[in-house]
Amino acid sequence: MNASAPSTDERLARVALARLGEPGEARLAGLAAELGAVQLYDALCAERNPHGILTDVAGRLSEVDPERDLRRADRQGIRFVVPGDAEWPRRLDDLAAAGSLYERGGAPIGLWVRGPLDLSTIDRCVAIVGSRSSTSYGLRVADEIAATVARAGAAVVSGAAFGIDQAAHRGALAVGGTTVAVLACGADRAYPEAHRALIDHIATVGAVVSESPPGCSPTRIRFLARNRLIAALGNGTVIVEAAIRSGALNTANWSERLHRVLMGVPGPVTSAQSEGVHQLVRTGAAGLVTCGNDVLELVGGAGQHLRDDPREPARPRDRLTARQRQVIDAVPVRSPAPADSVARTAGMGLIEVRGVLGRLSDHRLVEFVGGGWRLCDPTGRDGLSRSDPELNLDGVT
Amino acid sequence: MNASAPSTDERLARVALARLGEPGEARLAGLAAELGAVQLYDALCAERNPHGILTDVAGRLSEVDPERDLRRADRQGIRFVVPGDAEWPRRLDDLAAAGSLYERGGAPIGLWVRGPLDLSTIDRCVAIVGSRSSTSYGLRVADEIAATVARAGAAVVSGAAFGIDQAAHRGALAVGGTTVAVLACGADRAYPEAHRALIDHIATVGAVVSESPPGCSPTRIRFLARNRLIAALGNGTVIVEAAIRSGALNTANWSERLHRVLMGVPGPVTSAQSEGVHQLVRTGAAGLVTCGNDVLELVGGAGQHLRDDPREPARPRDRLTARQRQVIDAVPVRSPAPADSVARTAGMGLIEVRGVLGRLSDHRLVEFVGGGWRLCDPTGRDGLSRSDPELNLDGVT
Repeated sequence: MNASAPSTDERLARVALARLGEPGEARLAGLAAELGAVQLYDALCAERNPHGILTDVAGRLSEVDPERDLRRADRQGIRFVVPGDAEWPRRLDDLAAAGSLYERGGAPIGLWVRGPLDLSTIDRCVAIVGSRSSTSYGLRVADEIAATVARAGAAVVSGAAFGIDQAAHRGALAVGGTTVAVLACGADRAYPEAHRALIDHIATVGAVVSESPPGCSPTRIRFLARNRLIAALGNGTVIVEAAIRSGALNTANWSERLHRVLMGVPGPVTSAQSEGVHQLVRTGAAGLVTCGNDVLELVGGAGQHLRDDPREPARPRDRLTARQRQVIDAVPVRSPAPADSVARTAGMGLIEVRGVLGRLSDHRLVEFVGGGWRLCDPTGRDGLSRSDPELNLDGVT
Repeated sequence: MNASAPSTDERLARVALARLGEPGEARLAGLAAELGAVQLYDALCAERNPHGILTDVAGRLSEVDPERDLRRADRQGIRFVVPGDAEWPRRLDDLAAAGSLYERGGAPIGLWVRGPLDLSTIDRCVAIVGSRSSTSYGLRVADEIAATVARAGAAVVSGAAFGIDQAAHRGALAVGGTTVAVLACGADRAYPEAHRALIDHIATVGAVVSESPPGCSPTRIRFLARNRLIAALGNGTVIVEAAIRSGALNTANWSERLHRVLMGVPGPVTSAQSEGVHQLVRTGAAGLVTCGNDVLELVGGAGQHLRDDPREPARPRDRLTARQRQVIDAVPVRSPAPADSVARTAGMGLIEVRGVLGRLSDHRLVEFVGGGWRLCDPTGRDGLSRSDPELNLDGVT
């Protein structure tokens, strides 16, 4: 125990306050931070209306038994982490400012955590969320991105929902990476029920986190509040697929409010599941990412993970001298032309051009047919593009 | 004939100069503009080396018979349009500045044009280009974008190549729109040969344009030069699909140099044919567009074609009052909760909550089962997402 660790009273007061309010009640969290949780708790417990009767809030607080809540949670392997704890994830504090202007927001009063992962040991963290009714394409990309960032040592945080969330957790787990599931129900429960095995597995190797006390059911309020925690825990958020009204856009919105890096994975413009992502990129809210390395480049520290621009393997043309290129660029792609015509087009002497054409011919880049020279089709042999001799003109920059 | 129209001598001099140089020889075009084509032509014809012998250039010019070239072209239905002609597309003049710093560039010496379309009547024009080895997805999107912009009265310019180019021309033709094919070979020829019918059809309703004189074969130089004309004729360029080394990226590059609007259509990140486009969007060179209306918004004048952000049809939740939303947001999605628990979560009085729950139940938004209230699954009836009651939580913004 260090000197600045929260007192037992502080922790108990926060357990009770977390029971009182719904997640994302910024005013309650703000008052707890300002007055101290114990003072706030005591004041609320003593609150009476003008007729001297305990207020509704005071009445509800009197029904809460925080010590019993903590004991019960402990038996379920769930701990309650509060601001000031060594494990408290500092990034959540950013919510205090981001939420103040909005109806729902604020830092959480505390976090219920199940699993061996110490949240404070997470350095870099990427939130990966998206459509529940995702396509197989989206699942594949979410899996790849999660695996890549997890292999690079970043934690993957998501909401354990169907679709993209599940793929993100699984991608991280598949490479032995770190993953955190933030739930809208209690950390002892599994929502969706079909993901009980996944959630329980995350609780054995990573962390299952909730702002709502154990036993709570998921409600819309809690999903909305949960989304802000996912955005706040990440250094950045990747939206893999999202229809226009997808809940994932709520997480995106929180990421923007928190000034985190917001990233979107494009998809076919014909897919409704990519429409929301394209809108984010089109309007400039999100940057475009195509793979885990793109994500690492954006969430990494300066100079870390700068990805190389993709390049195809070098082509024969790349190895030519400037003079050789000058000649080959003047050789017709289809109808053969005599050497003097090539020389004229290239603006070079006939004797030099003849020599160069011979060497290019040795490398099967040009061919002499029907009394003239034309380009070979280097892609023709695989049968792929016999019909398109223009293909070997690629490589133009 | 108006006073400022180019003289016959000027036109003939440009025919000869166009024969002398390859397309995109910025120095030649620059000198023609500076000295006048007739003066440049006369000077080059008289050029002698230190030994008093005609230079190679002078020798070649002496072999050119521009009057015969014009007569022959006229018989093929091809006219030669030069700067100063009423039909000269003014946008091409931007090339004079954009090309000066580069090896190849500059405004063309003149354009050989086949077809009824008067190029000067084109107001808005969109270049649509992309991969020759496109996917069916790319073809579909190119067709849609071309049809939409053509229907809105903009011309579609492309290169008549396989793949995206073809789809762009066809999309415009299918709606009776205006389309221009810019070729790397002479305007009398068809490259690729398989597109002869398409190119001839464009020549009967639109325009087939080339910087190279009739009869010329396509070469790499001419493809590169052709790309700059496509970029210059458009108010903006749309890249629909492009692999990392696709020639379409050369057109994109010209569009940037010309400070035209550059747009990219995203696709699956798993498709090599979208990789080049994603790179353009990722680096900020191109804006993301998903449909013809996006394109019109970017190339249209200010205030024209501002597209509505896509919206799904309104959902029942949209019609609720604030108090009703407050209640529904507190109703569990799965395990039913009694009304007093809902009231507590919602922070509202029990009597009001009971009333609201009744009305929500009438609208089949909540249901009373097993002694408590929970959300209905409005999407369940189609069998699509019975397993995912969280779906009706969408609509979060």
